[in-house]
Amino acid sequence: MSYKIAENAALIIVDFQKAIDDSRWERRNNPDAEGNAARLLEAWRAAGRPVLHVQHLSTEPDSPYRPAQPGCDFKDLLAPGPGEIVVQKRTNNAFIDTGLEATLRGFGIGEVVIAGVLLHNSVDATVRMAGNLGFRTWLVEDATASIDLTDLDGRLWSAEDVHALSLAQLNGEYASVVRTEPFLAALQTLVADGAPA
Amino acid sequence: MSYKIAENAALIIVDFQKAIDDSRWERRNNPDAEGNAARLLEAWRAAGRPVLHVQHLSTEPDSPYRPAQPGCDFKDLLAPGPGEIVVQKRTNNAFIDTGLEATLRGFGIGEVVIAGVLLHNSVDATVRMAGNLGFRTWLVEDATASIDLTDLDGRLWSAEDVHALSLAQLNGEYASVVRTEPFLAALQTLVADGAPA
Repeated sequence: MSYKIAENAALIIVDFQKAIDDSRWERRNNPDAEGNAARLLEAWRAAGRPVLHVQHLSTEPDSPYRPAQPGCDFKDLLAPGPGEIVVQKRTNNAFIDTGLEATLRGFGIGEVVIAGVLLHNSVDATVRMAGNLGFRTWLVEDATASIDLTDLDGRLWSAEDVHALSLAQLNGEYASVVRTEPFLAALQTLVADGAPA
Repeated sequence: MSYKIAENAALIIVDFQKAIDDSRWERRNNPDAEGNAARLLEAWRAAGRPVLHVQHLSTEPDSPYRPAQPGCDFKDLLAPGPGEIVVQKRTNNAFIDTGLEATLRGFGIGEVVIAGVLLHNSVDATVRMAGNLGFRTWLVEDATASIDLTDLDGRLWSAEDVHALSLAQLNGEYASVVRTEPFLAALQTLVADGAPA
């Protein structure tokens, strides 16, 4: 599989804060999501490509994502490095009431690669928005995760099912769904902005 | 079940155009969606409450939602009446590059009731955005519809399953999911803005 990836495509990592390990977000799938996001981050840093870290600042009193508590910190593996922009958000959607769109436009960035949690919630809302705002959007399916959900009729849906159906809804309509390994391989062979990988 | 519904809550009907009957959007669930949306519309008109019709103008060359063809017209049952605003959109999300948010804010409207198609696509994107923009959002589950979807592993998901999981993802986080009958009953007993129904 090869992909055409813009040389200045921005990596956007959504809500990978310590709070995601709170028991309220069990049972989660894809324990490798953080490791895969870290591999993307490492590749982006090595190539000097733009990285943006989205940090959720919950406004709910009992959320572990609320500011000024340990859960609000980024996970160690995915902490922002020097010169990397942090975009703080208060809703699910990283484009609402943040500088994200203006920052991307300001840098002339037209393409984004999205990883983070949770797929069916903040990642979904952000991916839909990125696609609808006209950004070429890549969603890295194994660098994101879902949780079990119970529907309004009381039926339990596994995290794996939630994950699969979210990807089906987003792929082709809002984003191109990819996996870390082939995507990084394509990046290695990228020679110029928009050139075939 | 009773609901507190603001007296100026706007009814927003999304993409109920003739194109939705195209065979590419089969197999669809909930054939009563149009009828239920029409019941909401009738009640909104009778009470003189604000109604906005969202019309999708596809930019895809082969879409029946493309302008200047019969599919782009509203369904007869749900055609805009005199004085009702039409919001034309070109993405899934009715808030992007439209006057929708400005119109709602301009009229002092803080609450929206959403019906339309398709639940997992334009309705989902619009409901998430409405909730994240701070509008109190009601999603009428039986005035919307879903279609069968095939996921990236080739597994077929029924429209009913797609519908149930979309509602589970949106309810409580972006919107309150309601049904036409009890919602309309609550509206009948509404005596003042914000008063208990």
